[in-house]
Formats: sequence, C-alpha cells, structure tokens
Amino acid sequence: MNKIIEEKIISEERVFTGGLVKVNRLEVILPDGKPAAREAVRHPGASAVVPVDENGNVTLVKQYRAPIADVLLEIPAGKLDFPGEDRLEAARRELREETGFIAENWVHLTDIVTTPGFCDEVISIFLATGLTAGDDEPDEDEFLNVVKMPLTELLEMADRGELTDSKTLIGLMLAARKLKA
Amino acid sequence: MNKIIEEKIISEERVFTGGLVKVNRLEVILPDGKPAAREAVRHPGASAVVPVDENGNVTLVKQYRAPIADVLLEIPAGKLDFPGEDRLEAARRELREETGFIAENWVHLTDIVTTPGFCDEVISIFLATGLTAGDDEPDEDEFLNVVKMPLTELLEMADRGELTDSKTLIGLMLAARKLKA
Repeated sequence: MNKIIEEKIISEERVFTGGLVKVNRLEVILPDGKPAAREAVRHPGASAVVPVDENGNVTLVKQYRAPIADVLLEIPAGKLDFPGEDRLEAARRELREETGFIAENWVHLTDIVTTPGFCDEVISIFLATGLTAGDDEPDEDEFLNVVKMPLTELLEMADRGELTDSKTLIGLMLAARKLKA
Repeated sequence: MNKIIEEKIISEERVFTGGLVKVNRLEVILPDGKPAAREAVRHPGASAVVPVDENGNVTLVKQYRAPIADVLLEIPAGKLDFPGEDRLEAARRELREETGFIAENWVHLTDIVTTPGFCDEVISIFLATGLTAGDDEPDEDEFLNVVKMPLTELLEMADRGELTDSKTLIGLMLAARKLKA
C-alpha cells in the first residue's frame, strides 16, 4: 500500500550567504498535515566528464579538497558559471581548462544529485571520446595534477574502495557499462 | 611533473549553525603561498545499505526530498546518530527502521564523499544479504514507501539515467560488480 509521502513547501528564505555556500530554510507541511522545517544548501550545479582515449585510458585530476583536508582523485568537473548554463558547454570548458583536451564525441551518461537530504546540487556527467590534446588552463586558485590511468584499473580501485568521490565512481562505472569495458 | 597541490589550513570557524546544516569558514594557504578562504558544510556522516535477497531483488525506499522538491528512489540510509558512531551499526539500524529487514551477511562496499568541494559528508555503503523480514519503524517525520525491484532492472534504469541519487547509483553498481549480477 503506497503512503502519501510528498511534502508541501510553503515558504523559503535565505538564512546564510557565504562565498560559495548558500543555505535556505524551507517551511513544509508533512504528509500528516504537521508543519516542519527543512534546510537546503542552494548550489548552481556542475558538469563532469569521463575522458576516455582510444587505448581505454581515463584522464583524471588530483585535487586538494579543504573540507576533507585530503587529495582526491576525480574526473574533470566544475561548477556552472551561471545558473542555467548549458551543461555540455560547461563540461567542454572544464575538460579543456583542467586537462587541455578537446573531445569529438560526447555522450550524456546521467545527472546525479549528490546529497539530496540537504542540498540541490545536480552534476551532469558526460563520456568524452575522440580526444585531442591542447593546453590546460586551470583557474588561478585551482591547483591540480593530471593523471592518466586505464579504466579497468580504476574499476578495480573502485571495487577495493580506493576511489571515494561520488561523481567519479558513478562516471567511471557508467562509462564502463556503456563501453562494455 | 607533479605540482604541489596541498593547501595548509590555518584556521576554521563556525559561520552558520542551522538545525541540520552547519557551515565553517576555513582560511587556507594555497600552494603558491597566497591566502584563500574555503567553506565547508560539516556533516556527521551517514550509512547506506544495498539489501539484496536470494532472488536478486533489492529493497529501496521512495522518499520526498524537499531541497529538490521531488521524490527519489534510494537505498536505505540515514545519518549517524552521533559523530563516531559505528557505521555498520548505523547501517543495521537504518535497514531495520526503514524496511524492517535484518540481514545475516554484511559486506562493506566503499565509503564515498558526496560533494567534497564544500562538504565533508562521508557515506559508508554496505551490501546486506541473508535478509529476514521484521517490522519497519520509520522516524516520526520520515514518510517512505518501500519498493522491491530486481537488481538487473535497477542497473538498466541507471544506464538510462533514471536513477539520480549518488549513494544509490554507487551502491547498486558496486553490489552488482561484487555479486557478478
């Protein structure tokens, strides 16, 4: 028997505005009619790319992430420049800026919500093939190392729990399923 | 040639305390010696479970998520009750509360960081088999519908971009690789 589970949002107000993080407070009516409060980090969204070359190698970036005080191995990705920016265009830009690559073929793999309990961030993930090398142009405050690894080896790392970034795990596993790797 | 990419965190202060969302501001020194500010949503962490029965069916929950104003199909999951809570215990509790199941066999699949650019949330994902049905006991403000679907069908949905929750996509694909489904 299906229960009614939808909540009705009756108001939303900004309660924190940081440089990057913006938090809204939502008043909702629960399915049982009771009022409740929810919080939502409002995020512009992002695009991410799994760039796979003709030998089955993936180009990734190692990047320091201050919130977890650690270096992560991630597929190239970046926030949209403005809300509503074309997500494929954003993916092309991030791939070029972070790795220098231009890709001939683009396939949309999926859109993910990273942590929908308290945030509206949506990341669109693309598979890029037919790669041509160019010059990378990282943002001024972005310090990266570009690494190239076989997709098969990355999948084994995923199986061993050695990859932890969510967009990266999803992009690699969906790309492998698409490419039958 | 590997560049130095680590940042040095020199201070951290709470700048927003909501009911659920807590935001800290970090001052860091970039690899080039320049100062910069970072923001981090501080999260207690969570556990999630892929419960697979002897027929290859997965039990999931449909849940309304106010930040995206939509219903999501998700594997059972929940926040840790306190920082440092045993993540397997939290997974057992969430499985029982949300679906009523008790599982005989538990395998740790991986830990993921959901969105490390601005948040420290880590979700531990477990595969649970040897399921015995009991009574579900959802939290008072938690309205769920429990659904059972074949893992193979869920993977096809993932391939078509029809599943969007990040922990769910990762849990299902890693479980399938582990079970050779």
